[in-house]
Amino acid sequence: MAPEKKAFEGVEWRIRVADGSSEVPVPDMELARKVWLRTKGLISCLGSNVWMFLKKAWDIGANDPRKVIHCFKVGLALTLVSLFYFMRPLYDGVGGNAMWALMTVVLVFEPNVGATIYKCLNRMFATFLAGFLALGVHWIASRSGDRFEPFVVGASVFLLASMATFTRFIPSIKSLFDYGAMVFILTFSFVAVSGYRVDKLFDFAHQRISTIFIGTSLCILVIILVCPIWCGQELHGLTVRNMDKLADSLDGCVTKYFTNTNGEDDKKTQGYKCVLSSKASEDSMANFARWEPSHGRFNFRHPWKQYLKIGASMRSCAYCIEALNSCINKENKAADSIKKHLSTSCLKVSSSTSSVIREVAETVKKMNKSPTVFMLIGEMNGAVEELRNDLKSLSQLLDLSTSAENKEHETPLMEIIPVVTLASILIEIAVRTEAIVSSVEELAKLAEFAAHDGKSKRSEMKDKIVPDEEKPEGKLEALQRV
Amino acid sequence: MAPEKKAFEGVEWRIRVADGSSEVPVPDMELARKVWLRTKGLISCLGSNVWMFLKKAWDIGANDPRKVIHCFKVGLALTLVSLFYFMRPLYDGVGGNAMWALMTVVLVFEPNVGATIYKCLNRMFATFLAGFLALGVHWIASRSGDRFEPFVVGASVFLLASMATFTRFIPSIKSLFDYGAMVFILTFSFVAVSGYRVDKLFDFAHQRISTIFIGTSLCILVIILVCPIWCGQELHGLTVRNMDKLADSLDGCVTKYFTNTNGEDDKKTQGYKCVLSSKASEDSMANFARWEPSHGRFNFRHPWKQYLKIGASMRSCAYCIEALNSCINKENKAADSIKKHLSTSCLKVSSSTSSVIREVAETVKKMNKSPTVFMLIGEMNGAVEELRNDLKSLSQLLDLSTSAENKEHETPLMEIIPVVTLASILIEIAVRTEAIVSSVEELAKLAEFAAHDGKSKRSEMKDKIVPDEEKPEGKLEALQRV
Repeated sequence: MAPEKKAFEGVEWRIRVADGSSEVPVPDMELARKVWLRTKGLISCLGSNVWMFLKKAWDIGANDPRKVIHCFKVGLALTLVSLFYFMRPLYDGVGGNAMWALMTVVLVFEPNVGATIYKCLNRMFATFLAGFLALGVHWIASRSGDRFEPFVVGASVFLLASMATFTRFIPSIKSLFDYGAMVFILTFSFVAVSGYRVDKLFDFAHQRISTIFIGTSLCILVIILVCPIWCGQELHGLTVRNMDKLADSLDGCVTKYFTNTNGEDDKKTQGYKCVLSSKASEDSMANFARWEPSHGRFNFRHPWKQYLKIGASMRSCAYCIEALNSCINKENKAADSIKKHLSTSCLKVSSSTSSVIREVAETVKKMNKSPTVFMLIGEMNGAVEELRNDLKSLSQLLDLSTSAENKEHETPLMEIIPVVTLASILIEIAVRTEAIVSSVEELAKLAEFAAHDGKSKRSEMKDKIVPDEEKPEGKLEALQRV
Repeated sequence: MAPEKKAFEGVEWRIRVADGSSEVPVPDMELARKVWLRTKGLISCLGSNVWMFLKKAWDIGANDPRKVIHCFKVGLALTLVSLFYFMRPLYDGVGGNAMWALMTVVLVFEPNVGATIYKCLNRMFATFLAGFLALGVHWIASRSGDRFEPFVVGASVFLLASMATFTRFIPSIKSLFDYGAMVFILTFSFVAVSGYRVDKLFDFAHQRISTIFIGTSLCILVIILVCPIWCGQELHGLTVRNMDKLADSLDGCVTKYFTNTNGEDDKKTQGYKCVLSSKASEDSMANFARWEPSHGRFNFRHPWKQYLKIGASMRSCAYCIEALNSCINKENKAADSIKKHLSTSCLKVSSSTSSVIREVAETVKKMNKSPTVFMLIGEMNGAVEELRNDLKSLSQLLDLSTSAENKEHETPLMEIIPVVTLASILIEIAVRTEAIVSSVEELAKLAEFAAHDGKSKRSEMKDKIVPDEEKPEGKLEALQRV
């Protein structure tokens, strides 16, 4: 309440409001101040939002400078193609149709080489095909008289556009020619329909094709010459990174469980989630990578599809790590004695499995066959066997405690369940790791990885392939049947 | 070797080849026949390939006739927009710029309403913004003299194109305005650069905007009026279907394991894999669905993002089913006695869990709160408790067999491991199912699902929310800590 002294200083209006109390109206000055304060608040809020946005944008750029470079590449390509407007001879050269070149650059320029080449080739090919078809349709339509011409053209547009749209639903065509189908529809309807109004249709089609050729060539040049980002290399790197993440997560989870350490390495432990979520990007990268010419250590016909198989085998391993993780994060803990009993062999399985995965990652990374992977698999299977023995001896441990006939020992089975579950999931992970190894071996065969001593590829490889019966996992497979 | 008699019938040429042996050249007739046979083979091979392709295409159309309808819709929209060429008054009305309308239709027409509206609005908005900016830049450039004009325009194109490209890397902008950013670059560079050659730039920009307006309106009309496919409805349906698949897989796997039935229902058992692989489509559908106007039972502001959360909780359940599946498909089987001992309670857990999932699917499907879901959760938790008791009594079973001191019974622990692992994964699945239930409850709250007796929404809902402490799972949660 206002002090009484203040109440006498001026006339005071009171408004009776619904609940019977009265309110002192705020003078105009107050209102203006309020508006000012609110506006200031709004502006500062907006300012801080803009600031946050800029900071986020800066982080994105700082984390991956190649994105910034890509942006400048787009600017560069567009400025270069603008020269067709700015320089009279160039402008006249394409008959004032420079806009198609400009449009081509905007539409086909993608962050990586593969996608750009895919779009460029699709655009070229589809424009050619559609242009010729449209000229044919125009020729037929113009022969059918003025009255029927629109109907012939209209019907052809309807039919061909529908058919081309349908092809986009067929997976095999979609993966190779999705963009092409769209450009086909565009060019065909464009040239066919324009034929009704444009006199020199042949020139029109010719100019569209030549300007698109200029645009696509420019794009391919800029994308390849200025800091190129190769889809294939990205896919290769992603595969290697994911393998390392898988190994880290596996190690992290099991160590966390048995040593009861918490926190710090949580990011490492959760790495397997990247593996779970990278299917879509792997698919699109593998799809674009096959359009890329030979680059770095990759040939034109590098077996990119095999990376998808490796990815699938990694994901099937990651599913198990997810299950493992849920075991670990459960509220009820296992009995410490049992945990201790199995800890050594479990840790050994996880560390040997993760070193197999790391070795395989190294194989892929260096594109060299690993000399030690079979040995490591042998170790892994040995560790699995050891774990299996420990599980067996657990039974004896249980017997001893129960044969003493003290009934308070009834719970142990309940208390060993979490550890036993963890152990059997670990064994399953070891099995699935072998699937990763064999898919990488397949890649090594298809891509002709060099033998580990760095000798020539193809000749060396034949000698190095170990016959199935000699492979350690061939012998040891039978052992790991828990 | 040819018989001697034949050798005398005519002159015979023998060609000495590298390894010293000689070969009889095949007469021309033979060659022609060979060529003919090969050609015939090639044609029939080609024919069968084409036939296979057509059959595949037919299957795609027959499985989802909406795809065929979409194709005809594209044809229809293009034919309609062609009228701007065929009818003189329309053609003159847009100043001969009908091509932008045509192009708009080809570029923005997508199979579903959400994606089309997203592209249409983005295209309109970006074209407006870029058009005005480009006019401004042109005005500045034209004031800076003939010599500097190309440099001002070129620099502005470089800068704005780079900046707009960069925004496409910022996730929050990408999800809403990715297409808009591309159209912005296109229109801006187009109008700004054309300003150097086109005299009536204002008319040019105006025509581009009005033709794009025509194109987008036509697209929106056709996509909504002719057999519309709503993204929201699709997402809704996909979520329900995935839940059913999850329930089927869970039931199928466990039943298969305990009853040793094989084959027939394999497709059902593998249904969870659809759940694992549907993240990408869920994301894009949820992204497009928010552009859709109110349709069917869905409001404009339907909480589509909640479907992503439901999807995530379903996937976390599916990971466990994957682990379960690997348990089941292992070579070494558990001891039959132990399997029998746990079979009833395991089957009960799986069937009660899957009926919870089915009930929740029904809730989402009908958009009605379920009257029985809490009861079913109670049942599920009861079954989990029962399974837990059975696991405990397993310990006694084991004691009995070992206390008789016949050492050939040493293996039981090894033989129970698969079943115990399966049981504890089952319990984990039950826990994760509750996460699905709570994410669906959240959806019911956000989307104001009707109470189960079909009364009014908002008022009824408040009464029906059961306080946390009364919820059966609140009480029973404590029980399922295996």
